[in-house]
Amino acid sequence: MAEAFRFERVAIVGIGLIGSSIALALRANGFEGPIAIADRNGDALRVAAELGLGTSFHNAAAKAVAGADMVILCVPVGAMKETARAIAPALAPGAVVTDVGSVKGAVIEALSGIVPAGRFVPGHPIAGSEHSGPRAGYASLFERRWCILTPGEGTDEEALGKVADMWRAFGSEIEVMDPRRHDLVLAITSHLPHLIAYNIVRTADDLETVTQAEVIKFSAGGFRDFTRIAASDPTMWRDVFLNNREAVLEMLGRFVEDLLILQRAIRWGEGESLYEIFERTRAIRAGIVEAGQDTAAPDFGRPRTSASADPDAPPLSAARR
Amino acid sequence: MAEAFRFERVAIVGIGLIGSSIALALRANGFEGPIAIADRNGDALRVAAELGLGTSFHNAAAKAVAGADMVILCVPVGAMKETARAIAPALAPGAVVTDVGSVKGAVIEALSGIVPAGRFVPGHPIAGSEHSGPRAGYASLFERRWCILTPGEGTDEEALGKVADMWRAFGSEIEVMDPRRHDLVLAITSHLPHLIAYNIVRTADDLETVTQAEVIKFSAGGFRDFTRIAASDPTMWRDVFLNNREAVLEMLGRFVEDLLILQRAIRWGEGESLYEIFERTRAIRAGIVEAGQDTAAPDFGRPRTSASADPDAPPLSAARR
Repeated sequence: MAEAFRFERVAIVGIGLIGSSIALALRANGFEGPIAIADRNGDALRVAAELGLGTSFHNAAAKAVAGADMVILCVPVGAMKETARAIAPALAPGAVVTDVGSVKGAVIEALSGIVPAGRFVPGHPIAGSEHSGPRAGYASLFERRWCILTPGEGTDEEALGKVADMWRAFGSEIEVMDPRRHDLVLAITSHLPHLIAYNIVRTADDLETVTQAEVIKFSAGGFRDFTRIAASDPTMWRDVFLNNREAVLEMLGRFVEDLLILQRAIRWGEGESLYEIFERTRAIRAGIVEAGQDTAAPDFGRPRTSASADPDAPPLSAARR
Repeated sequence: MAEAFRFERVAIVGIGLIGSSIALALRANGFEGPIAIADRNGDALRVAAELGLGTSFHNAAAKAVAGADMVILCVPVGAMKETARAIAPALAPGAVVTDVGSVKGAVIEALSGIVPAGRFVPGHPIAGSEHSGPRAGYASLFERRWCILTPGEGTDEEALGKVADMWRAFGSEIEVMDPRRHDLVLAITSHLPHLIAYNIVRTADDLETVTQAEVIKFSAGGFRDFTRIAASDPTMWRDVFLNNREAVLEMLGRFVEDLLILQRAIRWGEGESLYEIFERTRAIRAGIVEAGQDTAAPDFGRPRTSASADPDAPPLSAARR
């Protein structure tokens, strides 16, 4: 596998969930060179050092990228421009720069004219979890997940190949896509789902008629699923919505239109319309399971915090509030 | 545990996910008496017989309940009245009748005057999965889950106690609640989440700008979570929305109001408002995990269909479409 890494020295700028998972995946798949890690958050940097995620640790991104031939930007989308400006003077000639941002058009625009266009390979691994920070990373995060790359006309084939091979070594498959298309597709498969999840959790939290304790106790009826993605990193998601505004607003508009049709069907007791809508959504679930993008196990195969599974678990009543 | 079952002969009417899980939980927890199973769906009944879920199998609910001292109605909410009418003449004197419907006000109204009020204990286990039918059941489904009972003023204490003890034997804890309050609380913790999930899957399916293949491939960005609950039984959910209309419409109204505020914040680039909303939703997730209603493991501890976990899994590209 080691030949998959056609670079000698890596810099990872931003050591959250994705940055730390990349560091671990590099080592797990045989990369033996130095890994310089930068983060302007001192706590994150200290944790990264404690966990041994890299070989050197820097507050200043410029220091981490000096001498690196592969630079991976793992900061929130809104911090990309500032980060690019900070590293640009220190970039080694010929260094490849890539990123993992969830929005591609805005990142390409932000880096334009700052980082050499030919050596910049915009990327986005479609993988993650609701946990944030350097302790949340794990080496297998990218296995059997898609990584989308959105090179421009001027991107060097060789730089693209180096980045693609790295993701393949992590177990991902590569999809090359136009950045505008990426932003549209991800608006429906990722950005709108997060927006909806954040919104329903907030609605529940704001209700004056139902207490938070009740919401928590009876969340296994469906609500708890939404709380997982609504526990994602708020900075990251703020930046996604601000930087993919047009596509998110378009998808949100469609969602609201459809929701009003459902609302009307409920109000007027139109059982047949409801049944038809609820029936056909099963096919898309089946497609996702068949494509290896989710488990067929009921309830995500979610481990139950049951008395039998965990003899030390307190009774439910102890967790009552 | 066997003394928890203070009845001799059980009838289960409707042998889907919940009915079959009850049958399995009865046996797993030491109930040794006869279990008569009824379902008007011949296929479901045959599967139930194949799986040995009961001791007798009937197309007619009246035949199953004859002689039973505990009758458990597990049909969709919209079929409760018809089912009650069918069984009423055959009910043994003193038989306890309970149900598992996700709406309580409408079921109580439907059964009123048909089933003896004192012996009817309305119930709702807050447990389930996206799989339907008699093959989907499992004995531990109710472990460490709440079961809500909504007795009326006329409900016999003794009947209530028998039903409560049964659920406790299955590993559930009991919450006694007013039926109107149940319908309001479940509208936000279960009914609205399902409505939203069905709606976003439908929106994605209807887009002319993004293909279904793209939605499936990149669903790991968040969308796939919604497809799970949107794969739930369409008949059951049609009936929930038709029978808990007022509370669902109220919660939906609140959700849409909040969504429009988010929409506006995105349109006007109000990063601080977005951050504040996204930040505070984490607390409710933490409360749910702390209360034992969800796992702390990242991504629900979802098993990865990865090459390393499953050596026979096809490569992702084979699942491309």
